[in-house]
Amino acid sequence: MKTEFLIDEIRRKSSFLCVGLDVDLNKIPVHLLKEQDPIFSFNKAIIDAIHEYVVSFKLNIAFYEAYGIEGWKSLEKTIQYINKVYPEIFTIADAKRGDIGNTSTRYAEAFFRKLNFDSITVAPYMGKDSIEPFLKFKDKHTILLAYTSNKGASDFQNLEIEGKPLYLKVIETSKTWNNNENLMYVVGATQAKSLLAIREQLPNSFLLVPGVGAQGGDLHEVCENALTDNIGLLINSSRGIIYASQKKDFAEAALKEAQKMQEEMKLYI
Amino acid sequence: MKTEFLIDEIRRKSSFLCVGLDVDLNKIPVHLLKEQDPIFSFNKAIIDAIHEYVVSFKLNIAFYEAYGIEGWKSLEKTIQYINKVYPEIFTIADAKRGDIGNTSTRYAEAFFRKLNFDSITVAPYMGKDSIEPFLKFKDKHTILLAYTSNKGASDFQNLEIEGKPLYLKVIETSKTWNNNENLMYVVGATQAKSLLAIREQLPNSFLLVPGVGAQGGDLHEVCENALTDNIGLLINSSRGIIYASQKKDFAEAALKEAQKMQEEMKLYI
Repeated sequence: MKTEFLIDEIRRKSSFLCVGLDVDLNKIPVHLLKEQDPIFSFNKAIIDAIHEYVVSFKLNIAFYEAYGIEGWKSLEKTIQYINKVYPEIFTIADAKRGDIGNTSTRYAEAFFRKLNFDSITVAPYMGKDSIEPFLKFKDKHTILLAYTSNKGASDFQNLEIEGKPLYLKVIETSKTWNNNENLMYVVGATQAKSLLAIREQLPNSFLLVPGVGAQGGDLHEVCENALTDNIGLLINSSRGIIYASQKKDFAEAALKEAQKMQEEMKLYI
Repeated sequence: MKTEFLIDEIRRKSSFLCVGLDVDLNKIPVHLLKEQDPIFSFNKAIIDAIHEYVVSFKLNIAFYEAYGIEGWKSLEKTIQYINKVYPEIFTIADAKRGDIGNTSTRYAEAFFRKLNFDSITVAPYMGKDSIEPFLKFKDKHTILLAYTSNKGASDFQNLEIEGKPLYLKVIETSKTWNNNENLMYVVGATQAKSLLAIREQLPNSFLLVPGVGAQGGDLHEVCENALTDNIGLLINSSRGIIYASQKKDFAEAALKEAQKMQEEMKLYI
């Protein structure tokens, strides 16, 4: 998907909401467990309910791999369903991959070609040649971990290097990579205070911002510090929306939560 | 697998060779392509041929995910075959995972429980709470990227922080994590000059060392700088062994290469 198309969709829907489909069989409504593919049934109901209020779905690959082949089947069915029925929605494989070049090429093929995701999250530790194989793909987006929302982010990401934190060094270096126009960045909502400095380095890039809601990040503060003329933000919420109810009304409850977030977001567009 | 058992196996076989099963359908002998599961057939032939000369098999997950559900099936069959027929062999899921806590827990379940690997490679960028979920598993090993063998390693891993390179800071910090006795570390053979400093920080830990052979690393230099009383090394070779021949004699050719490496290794034990 071209970035321009994503921006148009954000304006059309007055939403920059991304919903994470992190499906845990212990948390979905019990009545779905008797379905042939409970994960897909759950995803389909959520997707159908909320698609008009979101511009992106993020599939956390760990939650599918945890169920082995069955999980991989649910993953394939879910991404195929979104691509077929809601091709206007920007899809993210939240995979945090990154390896030596020939291996990263394999991951890129898996998620961009085989599964046809629009984007994938990647980890920067192995540097340029671990990320460039992803960047080669036209109209695909590579979302680099910069400053994450978890506590452990402070272990390495804000260690000082040459007078600046590592995450800014990562961002700075990534801008020298080939096809860096295909980069987006992960910045946790819990790091909202750092968003100004990050936005200065990345005036036009999209930031994927997890951590609003369950993890304590604040939508208003994120928008104040990082919204651009082209929006430039995808705000992710997972548990707060998809598990709003664990009963038969789960899809309606998710819809209400998604609408609530979209109501807040449209004030900024 | 307990570390003591791995050490005993290394002594019994006079080998600390790890072979990477990174299967590419474009590189395996053509006659295998008509088999029902060419990847598993290839792996099984290689495993059966060389098992007496190796102490570890490393499965690079990207090469399986690139083939979708079929690839995942080949992965499951391969790890099940090793666990059943050669349970004495230390298995590594080369996955380079790492995410927020609840997600890392999912990856740990996928690779330690569902697939029953002895170990998994992980990336440090997200810090303590992204790695500790892996470390909780008893008799399972978490192999942290420290200083990798690729060119891009120089982008971030040897940036100077508080007077030392980031990779030493990663190692130092990792030693404060809960259950850190379950850690091993990835250090590329191409970084052999740094092995002395790394070994000083990690006198007893196992290092997984890729990059001997195809990537230019030197076995002798690695052993000189990092061998311990308990060996403490797993030297990985992938392409140099499994693709020694791409004809019908591929398994025998792999055996010859594995024997050659084991001959060199036994001089150090």
